[in-house]
Amino acid sequence: MADQKKLERLSEAQAAELMASVPDWTLDGDVISRGFDFKDFRGSLAFVESVADIAEEQDHHPDITISYSRVSLFLSTHKAGGLTEKDFALAAAIDRLL
Amino acid sequence: MADQKKLERLSEAQAAELMASVPDWTLDGDVISRGFDFKDFRGSLAFVESVADIAEEQDHHPDITISYSRVSLFLSTHKAGGLTEKDFALAAAIDRLL
Repeated sequence: MADQKKLERLSEAQAAELMASVPDWTLDGDVISRGFDFKDFRGSLAFVESVADIAEEQDHHPDITISYSRVSLFLSTHKAGGLTEKDFALAAAIDRLL
Repeated sequence: MADQKKLERLSEAQAAELMASVPDWTLDGDVISRGFDFKDFRGSLAFVESVADIAEEQDHHPDITISYSRVSLFLSTHKAGGLTEKDFALAAAIDRLL
């Protein structure tokens, strides 16, 4: 039941409200994103591996770009056609890695 | 000396010629790219880790995007302002992973 609810597409107002919980992320339409800078490529990769562990746990996977020492993450719930609580839960868990 | 030469920007004709050695890659301006499909996110990540090892060995790093079971790699030599032999050497080494 709770999981079902997490998969409901959020309204724009709901998404805007949840943005307060992840202030380092940027809301752009149906996607929230954040960039992260590391010392080098290995730093990027170690971070991506940690994100992957959380993604597997939550069964929810960000789109990831790695450009040497910079990693960008993009979250949206394709099944729901937009943002859901799952995206914000994953973003918050990723923030806790840092 | 050989390494110096590898870092010289290739002419369009030279790049087009070297494309024959990596037929699964696409040449688009100053970048060569290839997409790879895996079974799932873990498959993508394992591949990215293998690519990372080669990238560190060659001290040359592709831009990488991971979208669940799909990985895309983009190669160019920023220092040279375009494609160099290093890009084609890395592409060929990545192809040998598969």
